[in-house]
Amino acid sequence: MKTFLDCIPCFVKQALRAGRMATDDEEEIKALLDRIGCRIKDIPMDHTPPEMGLIIYDEIRRITGIKDPYKEAKKAHIKEAKRLYPELKRRLKDAEDPLLTAVRIAIAGNVIDLGMEKDFHIEKDLQEILLKKFAICDIEDFREKLSHSEYVLYLGDNAGESVFDRLLIETLDKPVIYAVRDRAIINDVTREDACDSGLHEVADIISSGSPAPATILKLCSREFLQLFEKAGMIISKGQGNYEGLSATRRPVFFLLKAKCPVIARDIGVDEDDIILKYAGKKS
Amino acid sequence: MKTFLDCIPCFVKQALRAGRMATDDEEEIKALLDRIGCRIKDIPMDHTPPEMGLIIYDEIRRITGIKDPYKEAKKAHIKEAKRLYPELKRRLKDAEDPLLTAVRIAIAGNVIDLGMEKDFHIEKDLQEILLKKFAICDIEDFREKLSHSEYVLYLGDNAGESVFDRLLIETLDKPVIYAVRDRAIINDVTREDACDSGLHEVADIISSGSPAPATILKLCSREFLQLFEKAGMIISKGQGNYEGLSATRRPVFFLLKAKCPVIARDIGVDEDDIILKYAGKKS
Repeated sequence: MKTFLDCIPCFVKQALRAGRMATDDEEEIKALLDRIGCRIKDIPMDHTPPEMGLIIYDEIRRITGIKDPYKEAKKAHIKEAKRLYPELKRRLKDAEDPLLTAVRIAIAGNVIDLGMEKDFHIEKDLQEILLKKFAICDIEDFREKLSHSEYVLYLGDNAGESVFDRLLIETLDKPVIYAVRDRAIINDVTREDACDSGLHEVADIISSGSPAPATILKLCSREFLQLFEKAGMIISKGQGNYEGLSATRRPVFFLLKAKCPVIARDIGVDEDDIILKYAGKKS
Repeated sequence: MKTFLDCIPCFVKQALRAGRMATDDEEEIKALLDRIGCRIKDIPMDHTPPEMGLIIYDEIRRITGIKDPYKEAKKAHIKEAKRLYPELKRRLKDAEDPLLTAVRIAIAGNVIDLGMEKDFHIEKDLQEILLKKFAICDIEDFREKLSHSEYVLYLGDNAGESVFDRLLIETLDKPVIYAVRDRAIINDVTREDACDSGLHEVADIISSGSPAPATILKLCSREFLQLFEKAGMIISKGQGNYEGLSATRRPVFFLLKAKCPVIARDIGVDEDDIILKYAGKKS
């Protein structure tokens, strides 16, 4: 997805929010906003928005010296999600359609997003999304691709959400390769977070090579790109991965809640809609 | 009021909104955001936020060549407010406390603010504000100052709101000097708008000399400053004038709806509260 004009004030807002996570020093935060302001002119509008996310977090590291301002928040979200895991596991066992329920649970986990301004309450939002109507629901394509795939490449999004991903992975009943960000950025899931979430017990964990809060193919490792080209089915979680891959021709299924109005418009749904969208299909 | 870090993303958002009012050309709007981004580093945090507003609108003029993007919107708001005038005049006649009711009406007009992101519906918001509880209501000081003042200096805010100001001015029963912005900026009231609103029939209209969307004393004319220093009572409408004058020692009454969270916090009230605050009084 390209960058829209509406993304630009949002970048500055994200920089302020992230700066505040990293430091209490108002002068350092102002210096960060000064730098980000000056970088606006360098944003090519045909780049994806998470590429600016990368610039923001590089500047935070440079100015504050802090590599992972969201470390504690990520740990807390993983802990909270793990607390909910047994109850969700029981619910899946009793579900009429376990696969669709597991997809819903995985999407519900996508509310845990510290890159966005919206507040979230994991438990409450989860209950709501489990009952919410899909705006796009390509579940039959999902079932069909799944049945013919040797393995699934699963692109993780946020830490905490990763615990909900585990429930979907367990339901897929196929070998899964779970791709994480190459290093800490916002509250995106890294190898360490994936292991904390117990994903190493149900999937092979690899880094996508992307340091951005998204799967940006030109920033990914050769190893990841080979998997991406070969995989019979790819599950892409969250907005960042959608922004990076919206133009793909690979068999990608986007699972997300459209929390941002620009992304919702790009997909053709309303803000706060939930979707399971097959990239290969016109909706 | 000084500039807070939260104002900075808001400046960029304002620039986008104002750019879109001035032009449909995405490249011109991007050029505007590039320029505004680069100017962030020049914002001294001890300056008031409307001083950045001035920079934004100067850049719009420079880049698009358009001097008054809000011209049509202002005309429409004045027309709409004038349509409501007779009914409000009747209501004032029947009011138990006409002065306080007129203050409420003048504050209700303050919802007409195109510098803010919030939507407004003049008629609906008016009904709501006429019933709303004041968060700060220094009406006794207001009555007392009014009774001892030879004349009132009234600092206008937005076009359209100016028609509601007329109702308060008529209720004050004192000579009034109505100060307007020196030139078009956002939808702030200019001399032309004040005359369209019929204010020349009930007050002397002068320019404050300030080209900013606020009464910034260092930008005001000598003539205005003399009046400001001498006036026994000053009525200041809206957020912009509050931002410019919050530290004043003059007998200023701030009448506004706190539409912005930063200003609400500075005043010590909640967002969307309405206030009649005497500058000389600790609340």
